[in-house]
Amino acid sequence: MDNLKPYVQQHKDRFINELIEILKIPSISADSAFNQDVIDMAEAVKNALEKAGCDSVEICETPGYPIVYGEKIIDKNLPTVLVYGHYDVQPPDPLNLWDSPPFEPVIKKTDIHPEGAIFARGACDDKGQMYMHVKALEYMTSSNNLPCNVKFMIEGEEEVGSESLAWFVKQNQDKLANDVILISDTGMISNQQPSITTGLRGLSYVEVEVTGANRDLHSGLYGGAVANPINVLSKMIASLHDENNHITIPGFYDKVEELSIEERAEMAKAPFSLEQYKKELDIDAVYGEKGYTTNERNSIRPTLDVNGIWGGYTGEGAKTVIASKAFAKISMRLVPHQNWEEITELFKNHFESIAPEGVRVSVKPHHGGQGYVTPIDSIGYKAAAKAYKDSFGTAPIPQRSGGSIPIVALFEQELKSKTILMGFGLDTDAIHSPNEHFGVFNYLKGIETIPLFYKYYVELKS
Amino acid sequence: MDNLKPYVQQHKDRFINELIEILKIPSISADSAFNQDVIDMAEAVKNALEKAGCDSVEICETPGYPIVYGEKIIDKNLPTVLVYGHYDVQPPDPLNLWDSPPFEPVIKKTDIHPEGAIFARGACDDKGQMYMHVKALEYMTSSNNLPCNVKFMIEGEEEVGSESLAWFVKQNQDKLANDVILISDTGMISNQQPSITTGLRGLSYVEVEVTGANRDLHSGLYGGAVANPINVLSKMIASLHDENNHITIPGFYDKVEELSIEERAEMAKAPFSLEQYKKELDIDAVYGEKGYTTNERNSIRPTLDVNGIWGGYTGEGAKTVIASKAFAKISMRLVPHQNWEEITELFKNHFESIAPEGVRVSVKPHHGGQGYVTPIDSIGYKAAAKAYKDSFGTAPIPQRSGGSIPIVALFEQELKSKTILMGFGLDTDAIHSPNEHFGVFNYLKGIETIPLFYKYYVELKS
Repeated sequence: MDNLKPYVQQHKDRFINELIEILKIPSISADSAFNQDVIDMAEAVKNALEKAGCDSVEICETPGYPIVYGEKIIDKNLPTVLVYGHYDVQPPDPLNLWDSPPFEPVIKKTDIHPEGAIFARGACDDKGQMYMHVKALEYMTSSNNLPCNVKFMIEGEEEVGSESLAWFVKQNQDKLANDVILISDTGMISNQQPSITTGLRGLSYVEVEVTGANRDLHSGLYGGAVANPINVLSKMIASLHDENNHITIPGFYDKVEELSIEERAEMAKAPFSLEQYKKELDIDAVYGEKGYTTNERNSIRPTLDVNGIWGGYTGEGAKTVIASKAFAKISMRLVPHQNWEEITELFKNHFESIAPEGVRVSVKPHHGGQGYVTPIDSIGYKAAAKAYKDSFGTAPIPQRSGGSIPIVALFEQELKSKTILMGFGLDTDAIHSPNEHFGVFNYLKGIETIPLFYKYYVELKS
Repeated sequence: MDNLKPYVQQHKDRFINELIEILKIPSISADSAFNQDVIDMAEAVKNALEKAGCDSVEICETPGYPIVYGEKIIDKNLPTVLVYGHYDVQPPDPLNLWDSPPFEPVIKKTDIHPEGAIFARGACDDKGQMYMHVKALEYMTSSNNLPCNVKFMIEGEEEVGSESLAWFVKQNQDKLANDVILISDTGMISNQQPSITTGLRGLSYVEVEVTGANRDLHSGLYGGAVANPINVLSKMIASLHDENNHITIPGFYDKVEELSIEERAEMAKAPFSLEQYKKELDIDAVYGEKGYTTNERNSIRPTLDVNGIWGGYTGEGAKTVIASKAFAKISMRLVPHQNWEEITELFKNHFESIAPEGVRVSVKPHHGGQGYVTPIDSIGYKAAAKAYKDSFGTAPIPQRSGGSIPIVALFEQELKSKTILMGFGLDTDAIHSPNEHFGVFNYLKGIETIPLFYKYYVELKS
């Protein structure tokens, strides 16, 4: 593959421009107002896969948004790699915090990205990382360097729980048959120190509703005499953590694996500066579960965070009202062995049980997924490690991520194959936040690294 | 005044239609988008006062919304009544809970209002009750039954703190000189059992902001490792009440007067059905400060309620984000002797002091006002009591209200005169809530009762 780097250099401007075009499509799966844009984005992915050399590409209808499936089968006797990615994006709000419109991509230099970064919603999560695989395929097919079969499965509901994907995978086990699954939807430690994610947290996402009186009330006439749903919700949320920031839901920690001293010591070797971390977030102190380091808190420990809260008067000025209802969206990150459906049930039962007299509480489960850990002695992991070492000149470090890609556990269960998480993003890319971006260096480096994975995977496999 | 009731009967349709016209103007002082409507409403009040017989009416500019001032001076040696009211209204949201548009008044019968009630924002608070005085004046001038001088001062910022009114009153003490102040901006026990409000609670209204990291964060990558402003805000709000629902702010109760057993026994005589109260609000239990009854909790005791809370993702679907900021609007109802500025300071210092590491907290005072108690042995109170007895056939009961009309304390301080709160609304009128309404019976009964107050006041005074 001596012509790999030259090929990427020669075509890099086109690669960047093609990505910019698909970043202009506001494919926000969480908001039905963008329904047509999500559909248009699926179409764009189909065209891209066809151009890149897939033999057949189809837009597969589902109960929700379609799944784009494409494949290039060169020899039934050779291994098959299944590439998964998603073409939907997170909502961009709060819009006022974006320096440039989320769906009008711009390239700007930053301290971490001297070669420039592409700023747009989805630049990193996951359009940019997904498109690296499309361009890597283009290289391999056009230069006759594809050493095995490849299948693409790109979905449009990852940011809202991948329900249709689960349905699709269960329906199409033969079609999706593969030897290893490749996903780029995670990050690495830095551009100087690549890493491969070997663990993901599970997720349980719920919405809660607290109802007091049957209407909004005047806070003067009723204040102090009836339960205020916002005060009550605040009390209930506050009670979910104790003074050590342990989660108080009975049974929540029952299946959490405690890592050994050795494992924790191994983790602690990853380069990390607490000062830099606080400076970059502009906080005076970190905060979390007693007895664990920052890197442990956001990777090997389960968490509970309120992702949104609302109730009463939130407009300009003042309104002296006691709201009839208060709401919150709450998500729990889970570690391997915690079952998300079980945790959701534990949460629901507990939260409803702590409702005081005078209010009614309901918990609506949103979605969730299991955690995942991949062994570092598998052929897939070894091939990925060699690929990173070649392209970065540095061996990657295995790392547990705090994020969740719920369907990874599903893939193992339904397709019986392991997933390799070849991520090229950085924590500073602000995914899910205003000013999300993806380094030009990272994008091109990903396109350079992926073909090497195919090469080494087939070599090690035979 | 034998022709009083016949006059009201004869003109009642016109009285109702005139009120409906001014209810169509969305004079929402809290929202600058309605700026022009508030101005238009001031103009409408000016025209109404002129038609009703005021000699001179002026729209007085202020730093904020104008104050409409009108007067009819018949004899400098006779007493002068100053009528206060407000022409601004509360924001109507949540709009989706209104059965008919808030600014398209409709008359509908209800169990409590067999003669029908006018449904619209401001129907009771305070356009309807303010307009009763305009129509009472019309009767007195047109039938030559005005026994003394009268001045009107109708403001447009009551729902946002009456700042300009305070400024105006201090500037115009001579112009506003009076013997007694009359306000209809409160309620009574029922249409069968009138009552006169003898006490009001003070108010302190603040907005709080909790800031964590400098941007929204991915809850997977940062969850559990940094302070979540929404979780923190919930904890801080929860800590403002102890297990007995006492407010925990140091010094908060220092100046609260404890009523005697006798006074509390007297209060307890007011007809009240807890079952009816719960049924009407559709709640299974009341909630509040330990050791006090429902009627005590919302009248003689100070309270703290969150009036609005917001932060993070509140849209459709799910977003796994840790918000950079969380906000709440919080109001405290105060009892006589509690100084609102002092309480605001106590709140600010306490709330900022309990902020945990990892977040920044700021408290922005909105507005406030002192509580008030009026003696029941004054000429003004006696005249009002006789007027109610005549028109309702039942003597009114003196009652403390949980609501606040901050400027009443200001009037006593600046104008050295007592205020009589002749309210004709009911707790069920849903002021500040969706489907606010005002009974046709109450509206017309008010117009019938007010001229009797003038009559008896002048008689008792001479």
